[in-house]
Amino acid sequence: MAARDIRLVSAGTALPGEPVSNALLAKGLGMTPVFEEWIDAFVGTRSRYLSIDLATGEVHCSVADLGVRAARQALAGAGVDAAHLDMIVMATSMPDRLLPTTAGEIADRLGAGPVPVHQLQSGCTGAVQALDLAYQALLAGAARTVLVVGGDVCAKHVDLRLDYSRLPPAEMVNAVLFGDGAGAVVLGSGGDFPDAPVLHRVLLELTGLNRPPAQIVEWFGPGDADPAKPAVWEDFKAVQEYVPVIAEEILADLLDSQGWTASDVDYLLPPQLSGQMTAAITKRLGMPAAVEVSCVADTGNTANALPFTQLQMILPELASGDRLVAISVESSKWIRAGFVLEKP
Amino acid sequence: MAARDIRLVSAGTALPGEPVSNALLAKGLGMTPVFEEWIDAFVGTRSRYLSIDLATGEVHCSVADLGVRAARQALAGAGVDAAHLDMIVMATSMPDRLLPTTAGEIADRLGAGPVPVHQLQSGCTGAVQALDLAYQALLAGAARTVLVVGGDVCAKHVDLRLDYSRLPPAEMVNAVLFGDGAGAVVLGSGGDFPDAPVLHRVLLELTGLNRPPAQIVEWFGPGDADPAKPAVWEDFKAVQEYVPVIAEEILADLLDSQGWTASDVDYLLPPQLSGQMTAAITKRLGMPAAVEVSCVADTGNTANALPFTQLQMILPELASGDRLVAISVESSKWIRAGFVLEKP
Repeated sequence: MAARDIRLVSAGTALPGEPVSNALLAKGLGMTPVFEEWIDAFVGTRSRYLSIDLATGEVHCSVADLGVRAARQALAGAGVDAAHLDMIVMATSMPDRLLPTTAGEIADRLGAGPVPVHQLQSGCTGAVQALDLAYQALLAGAARTVLVVGGDVCAKHVDLRLDYSRLPPAEMVNAVLFGDGAGAVVLGSGGDFPDAPVLHRVLLELTGLNRPPAQIVEWFGPGDADPAKPAVWEDFKAVQEYVPVIAEEILADLLDSQGWTASDVDYLLPPQLSGQMTAAITKRLGMPAAVEVSCVADTGNTANALPFTQLQMILPELASGDRLVAISVESSKWIRAGFVLEKP
Repeated sequence: MAARDIRLVSAGTALPGEPVSNALLAKGLGMTPVFEEWIDAFVGTRSRYLSIDLATGEVHCSVADLGVRAARQALAGAGVDAAHLDMIVMATSMPDRLLPTTAGEIADRLGAGPVPVHQLQSGCTGAVQALDLAYQALLAGAARTVLVVGGDVCAKHVDLRLDYSRLPPAEMVNAVLFGDGAGAVVLGSGGDFPDAPVLHRVLLELTGLNRPPAQIVEWFGPGDADPAKPAVWEDFKAVQEYVPVIAEEILADLLDSQGWTASDVDYLLPPQLSGQMTAAITKRLGMPAAVEVSCVADTGNTANALPFTQLQMILPELASGDRLVAISVESSKWIRAGFVLEKP
């Protein structure tokens, strides 16, 4: 079983429209230049891409739109036709609808065959969760080529009628942390893709037992619109306190499982919470020999898309023998996640 | 790989409160007795269980509440402690929140260990989709004991301010078809549960390509409440036309894969759309030698919970050599699903 050789073949990314700078964001949300400086100092994210036009409120693309674009890029990179996929797994925290699934719509638009199509409800570790399920199906021999997609569009949670300057920081921070986007990867077996990096391990552990969630995101139906309940709430202090610790645990676990030391790793994909937090975490992880692969300062936190965007940046650069470690932390209910690649 | 022996060990069900008869439903939604007769004649569902009190609008339990109850019943039936599970997979169309996941909350309340916890966004075939992922992980050897949970609570889509008597039938039918509930099963390997039924196969195929969805369920955030858009829409005529055909295709596929004929099957778990449709489908499937296991006329269509409730009804009755076929159809984007059990 362990002998089955699973490869991460290619990656793709789709980001909507033009980058929205902190200055443009502050203007769009009707805030003062102080807000812009606050983002720079406190969050360290310079820009993000949004599916909503902050001036008009118009939403110009969906999770499915972005997912299809990212998937086509990944499929093209792998030289795989959508009709030959054996399985599609998608992860999102913001599905376009409850039903039909966004994954089903993406599969339809790609022209997939009659195969299992799964959609995970997930936060920042969603890409790794979807990767894990694809990995199991490949290990089980039930699939030979799998498409994994992750994506989020925050538009439904952007309420342009709000006075953002009066929001408590726990709600305001969400307006600046997140960005919209989708990412995708193709997984296959070594027999089909002998040059692609080997996926040695996917780590995934719920670690939130008895711990309060640090992020709550609500959805509403026609029966329960409760104006007293905030739609998004974040305990950013808990995130700042625990995520770096959990990131260290994940790194130690991944290295240990491979018998690697810090100096064996060529590329590090750290968690992408915000420009500042990612910089702090990377410093703390202490891997000076590894090249850091980060995008959050430019893309914002695109949640379920992020690890795939990091992969898309670095996969073409990997040389024979290169080793890569990716770390992802979910703070809504605390999940340890990560994976390990090695180029043959 | 195919030699790995996966068992479906036990099942549990949780239904909220007391059954709500058609008369009580008609009264709760402010409708005339004609409505009650319409349900009897057109839908054939006699009662359902609801998490919302139709008189007060109070919601007295969540998907997580029901999921925990169903899971505890299944775990007790298997004699498995939650702390010894290797994986939890849940399916729902109506998560309590977007984040944290309802699956994570259930895992926490059950006292699960640091294991992978996945939540699928899914409709009527969700239970089989979750079963499929658990099955792959067991086949891959990544897990030895897995809890699968399915559940739905429709309360967020019940708007008691509506005049139900003036709704178009495509929306009204949803108020009578569905019920709230959760179900759960424990899967394990034959070495641990030698007397439990063998899960020979899980069938799962998206078959909705280029076909319009027959059900659309929206969710809203604070930014996009569009009063012109119905939250739930159903093409009940398409469901009536296609689901029986798809059910026949699934049955043929499952029988063929096992080398079984219709007379080899002792128990048939048909799709549970409504009392009338289930009766019509069962008649059409033509399996007079098989005992039909149905609950929809009493529980309503509990969507992601349903196959587990059917299993909970029949698992204790299975004798050595008994063969069971379960069929499930998703109509939002058309999915063929089913599974096959055989008691050793």
